[in-house]
Amino acid sequence: MTHEHISSAFDRDLEGIQARIMKMGGLVEQAILDSAQALETRDQELAEQVRANDKVIDELEELLNEEAARVIALRAPTAIDLRVILSVMRMSANLERIGDLAKNLAKRNAVLMTMPAINGSAAQLRRMSRDVQIMLKDALDAYIQRDEVLARDVIERDVDIDQMYNTLFREFLTFMLEDPRNITPCMHLHFIAKNVERMGDHVTSIAEQVVFLVTGEKPEEPRQKEDNTSTDADLSHSVELGD
Amino acid sequence: MTHEHISSAFDRDLEGIQARIMKMGGLVEQAILDSAQALETRDQELAEQVRANDKVIDELEELLNEEAARVIALRAPTAIDLRVILSVMRMSANLERIGDLAKNLAKRNAVLMTMPAINGSAAQLRRMSRDVQIMLKDALDAYIQRDEVLARDVIERDVDIDQMYNTLFREFLTFMLEDPRNITPCMHLHFIAKNVERMGDHVTSIAEQVVFLVTGEKPEEPRQKEDNTSTDADLSHSVELGD
Repeated sequence: MTHEHISSAFDRDLEGIQARIMKMGGLVEQAILDSAQALETRDQELAEQVRANDKVIDELEELLNEEAARVIALRAPTAIDLRVILSVMRMSANLERIGDLAKNLAKRNAVLMTMPAINGSAAQLRRMSRDVQIMLKDALDAYIQRDEVLARDVIERDVDIDQMYNTLFREFLTFMLEDPRNITPCMHLHFIAKNVERMGDHVTSIAEQVVFLVTGEKPEEPRQKEDNTSTDADLSHSVELGD
Repeated sequence: MTHEHISSAFDRDLEGIQARIMKMGGLVEQAILDSAQALETRDQELAEQVRANDKVIDELEELLNEEAARVIALRAPTAIDLRVILSVMRMSANLERIGDLAKNLAKRNAVLMTMPAINGSAAQLRRMSRDVQIMLKDALDAYIQRDEVLARDVIERDVDIDQMYNTLFREFLTFMLEDPRNITPCMHLHFIAKNVERMGDHVTSIAEQVVFLVTGEKPEEPRQKEDNTSTDADLSHSVELGD
């Protein structure tokens, strides 16, 4: 045991943990982009790579949790420092979930490659994924800089992602009604769209952790983070009328 | 500070945490059953209740995390005790996710009530949910009793849940191909089936934590916990041939 001040030792531990979470964040950003690109270019090799890389992300999460616990045990942090550590643990869980969703997306690549492409949908999904990746980048930046404004901006952008999902849901229904041969690929694509939408929810949850860290308060809830296809009766009616 | 032995103080803290996780588990079991029953009996009031109860589950998870962190900070547990605490935190995260999935399922109730029922599917989904609830009950029992055999049994039963999901996926595709009016309700029902299947994955993850706690080793991976609709080319072909 050296003579140094407890809190600076804690700060150094925290820096190590933050470096790891940034590394994890970078890998997850790449997974989001790669899984969507594999889908658009029908690149099975890239899809396999996403699946392989997910193991690294999972391992990082495990390491992060162990380190965080070790720091808590060793430093017995104050209430505020404890809040930081717990936030990091939650953020790493969110990152791990996003990685999982990207992996699941990549898994559908093989089966989608055997089916006819659905007009424009892969490009739309890639744009949606790209927006989620930028949101994630900004959420992580907001964390490092303790930037509440940027974090709140990320939270607001999730509404656009939900909107993109709703648009795609409607389009898939239309394609399915137009031609029964579209049903199977659209079922898979709908899944993928929903996965990307859920990635956005997890990014939002990271941004909320940042707001909580900076202000000590949770962003105003209830946040409407779900897609509205579950409750939007008009949507389903308009689609039903359309058949 | 009393004179008592550190480990017994830790044990008492742990008992408190375990009592809370059992309470949380009980609420989640109820949420699984209620959301599926609301779907089958088209009971919107029960569905609303599931959504309201989810807040209680979320609060319990937050409390559990704070308590766990407090115990780590206060007791600086040994490696093995730390493993127990971290397992509890992971288990509570899994329970919270299952509660979320039940809430999402309940959310679709309102829109499904406006649509024609799909022959037998609600009853099948209720049976599937019931099996998941029993798996969860057993996983929690296995945790309390540190029963590795029971935990491994739960892990094996998840294969049946995946199988039920695959059967339902196939049925929904058939219904959609038969009659375009079935497309919208089947899209929602497919979602629900996937949610229940994912509940099973989270229960499995709890059971894996138990195996890890008892043996210090993770169950043999890679576990094939995903549905095979993403990769089973035969399935999609047979369905495509069927149209």
